[in-house]
Amino acid sequence: MQDFIFEVSTKILFGRDNLKKLSKEIKAHGNKVLICYGGGSVKRSGLYDKIVANLKENNIEYKDLAGIEPNPRIESVKRGIEIVKENNIDFILAVGGGSVIDCAKLVAAGAKIEADPWKIVLGEERVREALPIGAILTIAATGSEMDNLSVISNMDTKQKLAWGSKYVLPKFAIMNPEYTYTVPKYHTAAGSADIMSHTMENYFSLNDGCYMQDRMSEGILKTVINYGPIAYNDPENYEARANLMWSSSWAINGLLGSGKSTAWSVHAMEHELSAYYDITHGVGLAILTPRWLRHVLNDETVEKIATFGKNVFEIEETSDRFEDANKAIDALHKFFKEELNIPMTLKEIGIDETHLREMADATITHNGGNIMGFVELSSEDVYEIFKESL
Amino acid sequence: MQDFIFEVSTKILFGRDNLKKLSKEIKAHGNKVLICYGGGSVKRSGLYDKIVANLKENNIEYKDLAGIEPNPRIESVKRGIEIVKENNIDFILAVGGGSVIDCAKLVAAGAKIEADPWKIVLGEERVREALPIGAILTIAATGSEMDNLSVISNMDTKQKLAWGSKYVLPKFAIMNPEYTYTVPKYHTAAGSADIMSHTMENYFSLNDGCYMQDRMSEGILKTVINYGPIAYNDPENYEARANLMWSSSWAINGLLGSGKSTAWSVHAMEHELSAYYDITHGVGLAILTPRWLRHVLNDETVEKIATFGKNVFEIEETSDRFEDANKAIDALHKFFKEELNIPMTLKEIGIDETHLREMADATITHNGGNIMGFVELSSEDVYEIFKESL
Repeated sequence: MQDFIFEVSTKILFGRDNLKKLSKEIKAHGNKVLICYGGGSVKRSGLYDKIVANLKENNIEYKDLAGIEPNPRIESVKRGIEIVKENNIDFILAVGGGSVIDCAKLVAAGAKIEADPWKIVLGEERVREALPIGAILTIAATGSEMDNLSVISNMDTKQKLAWGSKYVLPKFAIMNPEYTYTVPKYHTAAGSADIMSHTMENYFSLNDGCYMQDRMSEGILKTVINYGPIAYNDPENYEARANLMWSSSWAINGLLGSGKSTAWSVHAMEHELSAYYDITHGVGLAILTPRWLRHVLNDETVEKIATFGKNVFEIEETSDRFEDANKAIDALHKFFKEELNIPMTLKEIGIDETHLREMADATITHNGGNIMGFVELSSEDVYEIFKESL
Repeated sequence: MQDFIFEVSTKILFGRDNLKKLSKEIKAHGNKVLICYGGGSVKRSGLYDKIVANLKENNIEYKDLAGIEPNPRIESVKRGIEIVKENNIDFILAVGGGSVIDCAKLVAAGAKIEADPWKIVLGEERVREALPIGAILTIAATGSEMDNLSVISNMDTKQKLAWGSKYVLPKFAIMNPEYTYTVPKYHTAAGSADIMSHTMENYFSLNDGCYMQDRMSEGILKTVINYGPIAYNDPENYEARANLMWSSSWAINGLLGSGKSTAWSVHAMEHELSAYYDITHGVGLAILTPRWLRHVLNDETVEKIATFGKNVFEIEETSDRFEDANKAIDALHKFFKEELNIPMTLKEIGIDETHLREMADATITHNGGNIMGFVELSSEDVYEIFKESL
């Protein structure tokens, strides 16, 4: 186990009855709020009105940043920063899923600098402070409510890049599973795949002695495998929504990856698909993951993949560990396809041969060289994985 | 899943190389330190000298509170509070295990009131503030480094009672698995049992929909079952010590019990054993837990206990769930006895019939009535469990 620092101070208010505490939580940090949200579902569901009523009752002023995209774009961030600066906003409230929270994070950090916020994403501008952020979560997926990461897209340059800073860890997150009842089936499935992918990115590593973290990862994976299909088929099942929501936070807040160095190989590849085609992140991850695992299956990795099959999918061990590992990969593919109805080929989501080579090269470029993860991946490896995923 | 708040802001500095950051972490909160420790092992190991050197280099003044007992007593707390008040101490540094940290917590809270600190333990005095606390952990067991709980003994009144406050959650914890290399075998075993007991107290509940938490609990249990015996037999095995140490924090910091209401039945019973006989907490827990499980095994609980057997001890399922559950309890008993060499009867640790009835009654009195946990326990039930444990 490598040395690490774990510090996740986000206050989680989980359950049905916490929205009434919103203004009190905000007032610990600020009193002029930018409410960030997406395409309007928070207005249709009535959540926005409840939030605004709570703020008004408590004399908290607010402005809106509406229309944040599913893969949040730098233009929305800039719009947010302008509103913040014009109105002396001192608190950022993100209402939505990972896209909205990720956008809010860059607004919070970007508002503290004069330079173009895209420079933060590129690592050219260092984050030294940020406005405090709160989140009201409406979809279980990215875990952005309890981590310090953010992914922002720049469609002009075809870049979708991750950045992070301890200063943008949300101060609090209100997590009411009921708010996810209206998440459409497709996004419930994609969110489940996203949680699983975060967990697997942490899980698939070699001989690092992080046994506890791996057993915890298997626990998260079993949870999503159990409840993803239930939430898909029965959207208002509280228990399923609650377990998915709480899993989403723990998949990526640092616990499962503590003491490890992991490369997040599939995320690096998927970011190129989204940057080129603006697809749903979780769907891209679901398509790529089994192909990636098959591609990296070798004498060194077979034991870990077979263990995954046994502990997560309860696949009986045989004397042939490659057989066990292949069965595990099959089970994962089948779960995405049959239990979550995810389109499991790139063609089904509108991606053909055209840009595969270009996206494979971009994966390696944006990674700053070969991906040194579970198994080292070159541009050629990524291209092969893309082709297998067609 | 019930509504809950999760807020664990303790900064964990985990691994071999973090002691050099001590003064920097302290200075974020204070600059006149009370160093709390136990019977001198931190001096023999050289850790104390390293700490003092780091403080001196950084011009941090300090006083000592030495000799804190394994079941920390209210007298030590009072001694600590005196030193704090006489010297205008503004930071409490606990160097040790749960006993030292628990004592430090009451010193930190007690220093802010004029009343007898025992009143805090009794719930007669409310905690509204506390001095900031840091911990340097030297044994994996109680998890006190990352929670807001504390257990203090009063031998005059034969009381060993738990109390807690968010104000005494440590600001940081330095967790170096190497510091636990010198923990004697008996205490390595007892610490492992303690971690498992915390996990099981959170785990054994009925139909609360906390599936994720239960799978995470199983992960912690598997970790301790894997590494407890390794650390016992090979005390300087870093991987084993690291996994046990990290597990100890997560067993009790709130994650595994989030969304649940659990009664901590075995702890309530064990606290009486320690209060009357000053035994090692983890050993008492190990002795009681299998007897408790056998006592509460019934039509309602059989499924959960059998699931525990399957998921933790890999016991094959049969058509007879009572057989499965009994095998699980046997496996747990056998693990404590044969893998950790824990004396598994009360007689072996010097407890006979004499005070059993009195301790059973005290369990219920201190609990404020029957224990409403996994299965309701009356004084008669507790007495039966004690008798079975003889």
